[in-house]
Parts: sequence; structure tokens; C-alpha cells
Amino acid sequence: MYRPQIKVFDCTVRDGGLINNHDFDEKFVRAVYKALAEAGVDYMEIGYKNSKELFSSSEYGLWKFCDDEVIKRVTDGIDPGGMKLSVMVDVGRVNPDDVKPKKESPVDMIRVASYVQGIDKAIYLVNTFADKGYETTINVMAISKSMGTELDEALEQVEKECKANVIYIVDSFGSLYQEPTELLVKKFRSILKTKEVGFHGHNNQQLAFSNTIEAIIHNANYLDATVYGIGRAAGNCPLELLIGFLKNPKFDLRPVLDLISKEFIPLRDQIEWGYIIPYAIAGIMNEHPRAAMALRGGKNKENYKEFYESLLTTSLE
Amino acid sequence: MYRPQIKVFDCTVRDGGLINNHDFDEKFVRAVYKALAEAGVDYMEIGYKNSKELFSSSEYGLWKFCDDEVIKRVTDGIDPGGMKLSVMVDVGRVNPDDVKPKKESPVDMIRVASYVQGIDKAIYLVNTFADKGYETTINVMAISKSMGTELDEALEQVEKECKANVIYIVDSFGSLYQEPTELLVKKFRSILKTKEVGFHGHNNQQLAFSNTIEAIIHNANYLDATVYGIGRAAGNCPLELLIGFLKNPKFDLRPVLDLISKEFIPLRDQIEWGYIIPYAIAGIMNEHPRAAMALRGGKNKENYKEFYESLLTTSLE
Repeated sequence: MYRPQIKVFDCTVRDGGLINNHDFDEKFVRAVYKALAEAGVDYMEIGYKNSKELFSSSEYGLWKFCDDEVIKRVTDGIDPGGMKLSVMVDVGRVNPDDVKPKKESPVDMIRVASYVQGIDKAIYLVNTFADKGYETTINVMAISKSMGTELDEALEQVEKECKANVIYIVDSFGSLYQEPTELLVKKFRSILKTKEVGFHGHNNQQLAFSNTIEAIIHNANYLDATVYGIGRAAGNCPLELLIGFLKNPKFDLRPVLDLISKEFIPLRDQIEWGYIIPYAIAGIMNEHPRAAMALRGGKNKENYKEFYESLLTTSLE
Repeated sequence: MYRPQIKVFDCTVRDGGLINNHDFDEKFVRAVYKALAEAGVDYMEIGYKNSKELFSSSEYGLWKFCDDEVIKRVTDGIDPGGMKLSVMVDVGRVNPDDVKPKKESPVDMIRVASYVQGIDKAIYLVNTFADKGYETTINVMAISKSMGTELDEALEQVEKECKANVIYIVDSFGSLYQEPTELLVKKFRSILKTKEVGFHGHNNQQLAFSNTIEAIIHNANYLDATVYGIGRAAGNCPLELLIGFLKNPKFDLRPVLDLISKEFIPLRDQIEWGYIIPYAIAGIMNEHPRAAMALRGGKNKENYKEFYESLLTTSLE
């Protein structure tokens, strides 16, 4: 028994790019694309569509900009099955004129990441991209810091004014437990009557997968995950666990397992993500992982008690 | 707002001992004891009380046998706060005559691990230890394989005949999701009207902590955890996450964080536990981690796809 409306949305290259300046080589991205297509994944987010006027292509890799020609080259000759491609844009970091009409592009969906406070700009961007023919979403970031009336008002405005197909709950700080997840999904569904609800977890407290299940239970249908949980700081919901949980026979775990063996085990030796105590502490305290990431980049990276005490002090100020 | 009935039960040395033949040195166990006492943990399980007639003390470390004198030596001079000590016994592997009356022993609680099929023997053992003055539990192992009427009958018998204070749900294979966890806790509570319910998760699918929260939501009060999630195969619910979640001000996260920095980060380089794909596969398939542990001990330890296919074949036979 499965719910055919459920879409598995992989953001391995996009969220994983946040830990290596979006500098995956083309062979790696090609291997990810092929494995995801074979696994039956519904969407693959291949990177950010950031403006080259704001970010230098000498400092960042290809997946910060996602030129259409690069996407075409890296996917060339591989059968996508039914898998669609997505790119993400941040409010304030994209030039909408860089985005060609859908019929000229290999991209199917554009997701707009926004804080609750930036919702007007996000709606404007989404409607611009929708008018160019793309599927669209708004991904409401840092939701654990904005769960009050400001969120209700933003969602009501989205329901009235925005052409997005899906609105995502993004637990940026990995601080949600299952009860707040349930409350949020119910709130989104009650206000957003004409849209689908999505969930994007972070794994600071090893809750990204269980919160994704919780979101499924309460009828969120767009579910973000990444291969081996790769992603900034603690990473995301592991795709292999999500596929193992879902019952739709179209999914095949084997290509993902093979990809982990061949690409992600060696990669994990080069770049760090996952269950790491300072990220867990940031999640427990509902804080941005920024301070924890700084700690992990320094020489006192295992000084957990001092780090916790420093956050306690900051949060009392 | 916290529930004062909740007891945090640490099994770091006991479950962790399953990956090093129970051979932690006394300095390490002393550091764990001290940190847990300072953190406000309610119970520490210090090992197994296995029969020396069945197991050789030249093959296993001290924490396979937990002699009272060893326990006294390792805890000597440390303020336990309110922390009590527990040992675990397995049905068929303990000589009850080895267990002195409670008033002559540093141990407060004896937990009896049993499969549903061995419940008669477990009741006999529990009642023997209860009569010697100990707090007691039955830990019902491999529950994901025995969720039908045989479980109901066993629980009804336990409610009628057994002196145990607490009956534990043990997700030995790390295969439960939150909905089966909810069902099990409700079943246990509805049948075991005079007893507390406990939960012991395994972390194959990164669900040990979330299932523990689920058990709390549905009124299980005895919650197992281990420092940094140490334990056989994928390990257990991380104590630091559980303490971070609970609101009782008596708990202090800092001694646990310090213990992880100083003892567990170096230890993790020597012995393996945690989120490792073959254990995840075993959890997804509701299988004992035995085959996955064998794989991890061999030279093809990263051949995930082949391992998955071998389990698929076995389960169809």
C-alpha cells in the first residue's frame, strides 16, 4: 500500500554543494544522476542558480550556477526515466533574467528558498518562474524560529497570491521533534488548500528521517533527501532510508547502495557531514549551525563542553 | 514542564561491551560512572552477570561477569548522586546462585533479557531476583518479530505472575518506525496495568532517538540510551540527545559532552558502531544484524548492493 502522490526529491548535489563550494566534478554528478534515475527518484536538484554578478565562478564550482549547457552535458545520454530536474534560487541572489523559458531549458522545476520575512520577494520570484513555464516551490527556511502568527500570515498570502505548486517546511536548524513537525504539516495543509506540502529535514539530532516519516503520516507529499545524508553540517534525511521505507514498487534501493559504496564512502573521507556533536548541540538549542561549523574548522573542534557553554551564554544575552 | 516519573537508563558499558568482548578498562568505566552520576542519569547498567561456568574470563572482560568486588572498586569514592546500578542477565546464561542478596551487593536492579518464547524462564528469574531484594525488569527482545497474539499472551502472563517493576520493548533489529512503536507502547500499557513500560531502541535506521520520543509521548517512563550511541552494530539512542530533549532541570548535558570529547571520540577510532549501511539494510529488512556484522568483519565490507541482494534472496527462500 503506497500513496502515489508521494514524490521523492533528491538534493544531494545542491545541499551537498554547501560543504565543498559546489565543486563536485562532472563525473561524480553524472554518477549521481544515473543512480537516482535508476532508483526511481522523482526529482533531482542539481544545484543553485545563483547570479554570476554576485558570485565569482573562480571561487565556486559549476553547481553554484547550473548553466543549462553544463546540465545538458552532464546528463547527456543517460535515460532519466521519469526523473525531473530542479535548481534552487535564494531570494536576493538570483537574476531572473538568467532563467530562460522552460521550453529552452533542461530544468523542470525552480525552488525558491526564503525566510518567512522574505515571503513577498519569494512570491514575486516564483510567479516570474511559473510564468516562464516552470514548476515552482517556496522552501520556507528556519521554520523553527518562525512558528507564530507571522507564519500564518505568510502562508495565507502564499495561498492567495503565489503560483507555487509546493510549499516546503524547512527545518534548517535540525531542531524539530515529531510533535512540532506534525503541528506544522497540519498548519500548512489547513491554510494551503490548493498546494502540496513538502518537508526538508536536517539531521542534527538524527531526526531528519523520522520527521520525514511524520510529515508523510500527516500528508506531506514532497520529501527531500540526500544520498548517505550528505548536506551542510549534520546533513539531511538519508535517501536510502526513505526509499527503504516507501512501499511504491517503482523505487529500487540497489543503485543508491552501489553509489554510496563507490562514491560516497571515499567522499566522506574528504569532506565532513553527519552526526557530529557540535551540530547536535546547535540543533538541541535551535541555533544556526554557523558557530558549530566554525568550531569544526578550528583546532579545538572536539571541545564540546566549552562550545555548549558558549552557546548557553550567548542565548542568555 | 517535565514528567518526574521518567527515568533515564544508561547502558553504555553493557551494550557497548557487545562490540569489545566487555573489555573496557577500569579507568574508562570509572570515567563513565562519574560523568553519568554528574549528569543526573537515573540508572547505569554496568554489564552482564553471565555465568563463569558458561563463559571463560580469559576470553571476556570484566563487564561480562560484573563481580560485586569489581563494581565496588570501580565506583569507589565517586558520589553516585541518586544514580542506581543495574546488571543484565540473559535467560539460560546466568546462575542465579551467583547473585547475592541485594543488601550485600552494590547492584540495585537486575534486568532479564528474553525473547517472547522464553518468557516463562524470564518470569522465574525475575521473581528469584525480586525475592533477593532487587528491582527487576524483563526486556522483551526482537519485538519486531513477535508482535502478534503470542506477545499479548506473554504480557498477560507477565502481568499476572511476574514481580518485575518494568517491562521493556526492545527493538533489537532497529526496524521499528514511530507508528509500530506507538502501537507497542499502547499495547504494553493496556495489558501491564501494574507495571512501568520501558523502551530500548537500536539505531540502524537513525530512529532510536525518535522512537524513544514516541515512547515518551505514549507514556513509557524507562528510557534506555548510551553515550554517543555506542552499542552493538548500529548502536543505541544517544544519551546526549535524550538529555537534550528532556526538560527536567536535574539533568546536565555538560559531563556527557566532556566524556564524549575525552573518551568516546578516541574510542570510536578503535571500535566501530553507528550509521553504517549494512546495519541500515538489516534494519530496513527487519533482520538480526548478524550477517551485517560478518560483512563488516571481512574484506568486502563496503559491498552494499551485493549484501542487500543476498538478504533479499535469503528472505525469499
